[in-house]
Amino acid sequence: MTDENLNTLIEHSEDAPFLLSDQEIRDIINAVRAQDPDTVHAILGDLAPVDIAELIAKVTDEDRRELLLMYGETMNPLVFAEMDSELRRTTLSTLAAEQVAGIVSRLESDDALGMVLDLDEQFRQEIIRKLSSKIRLAVEEGLSFPEKSAGRLMQREVVAVPQFWTVGKTIDYLREAANDLPDDFFDIFVIDPAYHVLGQIPLNRVIRSKRSVKMEALVLDEIMTIPATMDQEELAIIFRRDNITSAPVIDENQRLIGVVTIDDIVDVIEDEAEEDMMKMAGVDQGDMYRAVLSTTGTRFRWLFVNLLTAILASMVISLFDATIEQIVALAVLMPIVASMGGNAGTQSLAVAVRALATRELSGANTWRIIWKESLVGSLNGFAFAVLAGVITALWFGSPMLGVVIAAAMWINLIVAGFFGACIPIILNKYGSDPAVSSTVFLTMMTDVVGFFAFLGLAAVLLF
Amino acid sequence: MTDENLNTLIEHSEDAPFLLSDQEIRDIINAVRAQDPDTVHAILGDLAPVDIAELIAKVTDEDRRELLLMYGETMNPLVFAEMDSELRRTTLSTLAAEQVAGIVSRLESDDALGMVLDLDEQFRQEIIRKLSSKIRLAVEEGLSFPEKSAGRLMQREVVAVPQFWTVGKTIDYLREAANDLPDDFFDIFVIDPAYHVLGQIPLNRVIRSKRSVKMEALVLDEIMTIPATMDQEELAIIFRRDNITSAPVIDENQRLIGVVTIDDIVDVIEDEAEEDMMKMAGVDQGDMYRAVLSTTGTRFRWLFVNLLTAILASMVISLFDATIEQIVALAVLMPIVASMGGNAGTQSLAVAVRALATRELSGANTWRIIWKESLVGSLNGFAFAVLAGVITALWFGSPMLGVVIAAAMWINLIVAGFFGACIPIILNKYGSDPAVSSTVFLTMMTDVVGFFAFLGLAAVLLF
Repeated sequence: MTDENLNTLIEHSEDAPFLLSDQEIRDIINAVRAQDPDTVHAILGDLAPVDIAELIAKVTDEDRRELLLMYGETMNPLVFAEMDSELRRTTLSTLAAEQVAGIVSRLESDDALGMVLDLDEQFRQEIIRKLSSKIRLAVEEGLSFPEKSAGRLMQREVVAVPQFWTVGKTIDYLREAANDLPDDFFDIFVIDPAYHVLGQIPLNRVIRSKRSVKMEALVLDEIMTIPATMDQEELAIIFRRDNITSAPVIDENQRLIGVVTIDDIVDVIEDEAEEDMMKMAGVDQGDMYRAVLSTTGTRFRWLFVNLLTAILASMVISLFDATIEQIVALAVLMPIVASMGGNAGTQSLAVAVRALATRELSGANTWRIIWKESLVGSLNGFAFAVLAGVITALWFGSPMLGVVIAAAMWINLIVAGFFGACIPIILNKYGSDPAVSSTVFLTMMTDVVGFFAFLGLAAVLLF
Repeated sequence: MTDENLNTLIEHSEDAPFLLSDQEIRDIINAVRAQDPDTVHAILGDLAPVDIAELIAKVTDEDRRELLLMYGETMNPLVFAEMDSELRRTTLSTLAAEQVAGIVSRLESDDALGMVLDLDEQFRQEIIRKLSSKIRLAVEEGLSFPEKSAGRLMQREVVAVPQFWTVGKTIDYLREAANDLPDDFFDIFVIDPAYHVLGQIPLNRVIRSKRSVKMEALVLDEIMTIPATMDQEELAIIFRRDNITSAPVIDENQRLIGVVTIDDIVDVIEDEAEEDMMKMAGVDQGDMYRAVLSTTGTRFRWLFVNLLTAILASMVISLFDATIEQIVALAVLMPIVASMGGNAGTQSLAVAVRALATRELSGANTWRIIWKESLVGSLNGFAFAVLAGVITALWFGSPMLGVVIAAAMWINLIVAGFFGACIPIILNKYGSDPAVSSTVFLTMMTDVVGFFAFLGLAAVLLF
């Protein structure tokens, strides 16, 4: 690269928009709609795969179809690797099997596997049959590992050297093998003849050491060998915990079969945190890229369960219809008690769900967390009992009604704190995902207790 | 390292518990309570800093104080770097200023800054005065950058070489300077004499190239220079987008002043995703490590705002108290409409908040998202209108009451979808954080519309 090239590079990178601008997106859409393939090719030719993936995500279904018709053939296969998986599934489904197989064949093993995984079962089998035997083998082996496991994330291309090699010999080998090495790597693994991992060496340790130094002298004090079946969430915790950039993956015979690198883990971390948030709200991941009907269907299930719990709460209310008939103020006030319970409980719930996901909550501190949440619920419960009690007494001119709402509020916020912490812990203990169903159980609890305590106390104390 | 050492290492790493076990935690707590410092030192001496940090997080406040008294003096300062920031703040606050300054002085520049940042203002100033001038300078410069900016995350120790150097000369230099280099680095930067960044070279490109190759021939096609003032959230998006392991940070004169590495970014990504989830639930980050009173206080604010919106909803109900008095079934049914609206709206909200955070939602697709959410709300609204209508008609033997709840349900779910998408978009547009207050606005909306539509339609249609 000449100096001039370097200078253009700097200028370009200084000007480089941090993301594709909305104006650029509009320009491309206009060219697509004007059936102007030359302009489309000219603009897209300058964009990085990740930008094209973003563009495809942001246009309408029709424009996307049009764009793929115009540009699909020449598109860099990496564009598909950069897409959201739900979007990729729908986009690839519109293409012919040959075309998809062609795209998959041009990717590295981990990207190829990721792409095949997203497809619907039948289409997937069709694609796999069309792959070259080498890639087919890699994909089929990947499929043999559990979903979301290290085996599915790993890259099969690894840099490993025997323990007795020196730095000099290693560097000479890397220079010779330059073209057969993975595109990117951060660590070199030291192995014995049976492919057992003896150590891990970050590249910077190699490059700063003299040629005569033995590789085994450079290994990290601790290495974490990852069984191919390990769940990606656990894997992400290890990467965060140990601040590592790659980790060796081993098979059931302890043999090195691949490497997981930090860039895959970054996606896992983002996905897992996002997943919890989405699950708690009752939304599937990739929801944004689903078609309207598919979104409606997946969300329906969650809402249906909520309808059932709402009806349950209504049944509790109907137990007291005679009481409400006499004091209609009860109907006016009862949603306050239920809603405060739901909100306070959600606070405890969010903390517990997150702490379980990051393993900050475990056997050693379970009871302390439950106790703390109950205590916080009790303290805020008392504060809001006083507030709601005074407001109610003034609003309806009835001190006794104030006492009733105060007592119900206090009870419900203690219940909310206690169950907000307990429900995810119990679900987790029995192997359920605490993020998925906690909210439903919790609101059921706080609605039922809120209405029952308030209306029940009213029935007892106000007559 | 001898072969024997290597073998012990393997065995250890195979047996190594993936995290500290609850049994180990209990053993240490027992030793602390038995006032047995020898056992405490023996056990903790074998643990990595990250494990000790986890241990400290999981014990009670009293045990923690006791433990620090026994072991604090000899504790590796990295333990503090590994702690949750809220826990670190409270833990450090219990120590003397000299002791804290001593800990900070033994850390690398980015960890030292991070630790000082967490402290309360007054204590922070006291600590800074006690630091050595070199570290004080680094900390003060770090403090001059905006909160959560690249300048605060970066490490000041960088590996950079002139553009005309060869691979051979670079390696010779790294071998000589071995001890002055940062502990860990992934890229070498190419700079001109004025410290402008000309290119970035991953270590693996250097190590696989012949000695005679010029460094400038190895630079990545694109580099992203990061202004020190860039927000960490934007920075995380760039790292994810471009799959890089480090990025050069520049000052306002475009000069290289530091480097941000992927391990910092991993924490940012985890934090940002977690933050959104916590904010939507009305909880502060670090909530788990706050004392009961502090947790109660921060959560109170959020609940208080919710009390106000609940009272507003009650006022809407009270407009119709005469209607409810005549048909008490309305009181029984009205929470169903409000709660379904809240849940459906939260689904739209979660999708929009997340898409805004990841920049998947921008000007180009705003209207499409809003339209889609309204449509999904309308479709599910219709489905649940039919369901709720039929159930109500059968339950109360009144087809007209079924019609009323059906109509109200439909209206409320359309409103929920529309505002669930709109509210975060509008808040974001006016520079507010969409995750913080969206939920409050949304439930206010769905409660008010739910009650008003249901009771209003009842008042009109049932009399």
